[in-house]
Amino acid sequence: MNIPEISLPRVVILGGGFAGLNLAKNIDTEHYQVVMLDRHNYHTFQPLLYQVATAGLEPDSIAYPLRKTFANKKRFHFRMAEIQEVNEEQKIVRTSIGDLRYDHLVMATGARSNYFGMKNVEANAMPMKSLTQSLDLRSMILQNFEKALYAQDVAEQKRLMTFVIVGGGPTGVELAGALAELKLHVLPTDYPDLDLRDMEIHLIEAAPSLLAAMSKQASQKALKFLEGMGVNLWVDTLVKDYDGKTVTTADREIPAETLIWAAGVMGAPVEGIQAEKIGAGNRIIVDENCQVKDSQDIWAMGDVALMQTEKYNRGLPMLGSVAMQQGSYLAKNFNRLAKGKNLKPFKYKDKGTMATIGRNRAVVDLPFWKFSGTMAWFAWMFVHLMLLVGFRNRVVTFINWAWGYLNYDRSNRLIVRNFRRKKGEVLDKVHF
Amino acid sequence: MNIPEISLPRVVILGGGFAGLNLAKNIDTEHYQVVMLDRHNYHTFQPLLYQVATAGLEPDSIAYPLRKTFANKKRFHFRMAEIQEVNEEQKIVRTSIGDLRYDHLVMATGARSNYFGMKNVEANAMPMKSLTQSLDLRSMILQNFEKALYAQDVAEQKRLMTFVIVGGGPTGVELAGALAELKLHVLPTDYPDLDLRDMEIHLIEAAPSLLAAMSKQASQKALKFLEGMGVNLWVDTLVKDYDGKTVTTADREIPAETLIWAAGVMGAPVEGIQAEKIGAGNRIIVDENCQVKDSQDIWAMGDVALMQTEKYNRGLPMLGSVAMQQGSYLAKNFNRLAKGKNLKPFKYKDKGTMATIGRNRAVVDLPFWKFSGTMAWFAWMFVHLMLLVGFRNRVVTFINWAWGYLNYDRSNRLIVRNFRRKKGEVLDKVHF
Repeated sequence: MNIPEISLPRVVILGGGFAGLNLAKNIDTEHYQVVMLDRHNYHTFQPLLYQVATAGLEPDSIAYPLRKTFANKKRFHFRMAEIQEVNEEQKIVRTSIGDLRYDHLVMATGARSNYFGMKNVEANAMPMKSLTQSLDLRSMILQNFEKALYAQDVAEQKRLMTFVIVGGGPTGVELAGALAELKLHVLPTDYPDLDLRDMEIHLIEAAPSLLAAMSKQASQKALKFLEGMGVNLWVDTLVKDYDGKTVTTADREIPAETLIWAAGVMGAPVEGIQAEKIGAGNRIIVDENCQVKDSQDIWAMGDVALMQTEKYNRGLPMLGSVAMQQGSYLAKNFNRLAKGKNLKPFKYKDKGTMATIGRNRAVVDLPFWKFSGTMAWFAWMFVHLMLLVGFRNRVVTFINWAWGYLNYDRSNRLIVRNFRRKKGEVLDKVHF
Repeated sequence: MNIPEISLPRVVILGGGFAGLNLAKNIDTEHYQVVMLDRHNYHTFQPLLYQVATAGLEPDSIAYPLRKTFANKKRFHFRMAEIQEVNEEQKIVRTSIGDLRYDHLVMATGARSNYFGMKNVEANAMPMKSLTQSLDLRSMILQNFEKALYAQDVAEQKRLMTFVIVGGGPTGVELAGALAELKLHVLPTDYPDLDLRDMEIHLIEAAPSLLAAMSKQASQKALKFLEGMGVNLWVDTLVKDYDGKTVTTADREIPAETLIWAAGVMGAPVEGIQAEKIGAGNRIIVDENCQVKDSQDIWAMGDVALMQTEKYNRGLPMLGSVAMQQGSYLAKNFNRLAKGKNLKPFKYKDKGTMATIGRNRAVVDLPFWKFSGTMAWFAWMFVHLMLLVGFRNRVVTFINWAWGYLNYDRSNRLIVRNFRRKKGEVLDKVHF
């Protein structure tokens, strides 16, 4: 890989997500040469992927070119590459475009879907972890309706129009709400030849309540909102199998062309990290400085890092806000290191969580205040607009939301990918 | 195909381009049942495809869902389908989703790239006739720069950074200008590790001048603009071969990873139309009423129709404005027919032509006034904004243009498709 060799120590960052982005932004390249590797040339704002999948936003407004973010940063190099393996002894990262030497290696490779060993589900469910997967999902949802128009019989038609979402966390709840709004406001006029009463949205959750990580109040409100929007809710329910045609739970079968998997994620560590360094949830065990256990100059942060604290004895949650904070934190520590100062331990500041269900329907848990409804919804929109990278993206997203709000519309109903899964193809490994 | 049989005559429109769209909008469905077929579920605003290819606009802002346009039109049915064949005797269209009976058939299937029989060029060039092709081109351009970073030698690096555009019509000129602006304003900061002086843009045109269909003044101005922006111009030059690595003309070879074909289009008639009804440029011969020669109840309009007039003895030009006018015209004629009135012949009203080369650089030919420069550029933007379908698309496009103007930026530099052409794959036949 053509990276100039200079006299400064080289920090290699694997991944341009929230953690990697914040680290690269804040690290002082007077003291370090920084190389960032990512399989995409853009940063994805994952919390809004579900809006791309449901035609509410265009993909370009929730992604931001990584090269642009760092256009004026000296001694920073970005390379689009697939990461293959880390060799700790040689201090080398092997990638699809060659080897790269490092002085410090920071793993910020995030998470991928966890199917808990259910191969059938993995082979037939749609994940929604990347921009391209969201686009595939958007195409698939719309293609199903096109197909329903010439279905052989009513049962087949119903199956095409049935969407099962597994996982009652924020992603599942938000997706179920967005699908319900498509059903209420958009699809009836788009498909006058179909009876939209045949469209079913099911949300299946293994735990006894939705939004388990949020307050009881938020959880109950989300349930009420979704019920009011016509979503079929199945809590305390485990998915056992999915063959691409029928979803099987302990006590029933739901014929459905689409199963969207939002039930679990696990860390996505790089090959070459020893098994004993990987803990619960397939995450890399780090100390309070984000340093990997028994490793030299290897760091991990964000979803892929397992940092246990007194309060979070199963590790800090896999949230964007943890990743952002760890990215900025590690940058400061690197800057301290360069000046010969001591490392400071990471302290997670819980800023609260929120989820949106539909127009005027959201839930917000702040450390000392919990609320829901219209105000929560506006708070959700404001926070997400501010978190988006790039002014243009904010403006375009704002317009799309304002437009959708005034017109009960979702404008981006384009089928630009012809989604066809090859039999047994595992989509988590497909990046484009 | 599940289309209800009612007592009104059925008009089947093949294609949702400018012509099909305007026909369907203006035809009176009190008198007709209308079915529109298109392989995409959206209308594409083709004049701005080059901006998608050069990262200036997101795909979603130049496309518009066809179902949305006709959401409130009664007795109108849209079906997403691949058209396979017309059977004039049985009055049936065969498609990928079944057969469809028609009373009137309107062919508005547009044009596709014409490689003048050069199989090698067809197998290796990039066309830019659809939204998905533009996205492929955007990905390919950016991927080439990513690859150039780890090229084996300088020659290979240069080849990856060389873009040859064949065809000096509006598409070729606009594309060359947009690439030149990427080179000037965007790529140097995106790729500090590359020497952008190695990026070459070649525009090859067989005729002695650019923009041959426009005035001499416009043609000369465009040439001057492009030269000033560093584009290598080759007029009076024929491309003879392209093997994917080297472009061969009569007197030189240009090593280039990318050849973009904007040199010619031909009609894309449906299978089943008899050979004697197809004239110059592979277009279907129609009379002054858009009726197909010696056919019963078959009509053609837009690029696929060859309508010869006194002034245009080689047929009306393949322009969006002809297609739009013919669409509205044919709707009026159908409405007249329904009321037992006579058909009126089509009269083309030349409203002028324009092309943009770069910021503050455009050329406009109006029937009685020709101008260029900043004012022409603003006129071009205004006209194209107004022609875009959908208010949201206009606003989003306006913001992108305003943003690009103020910041010398092209925001949509995302590689969302992994473009890899299979050996010999002909891209005109790939729709997604």
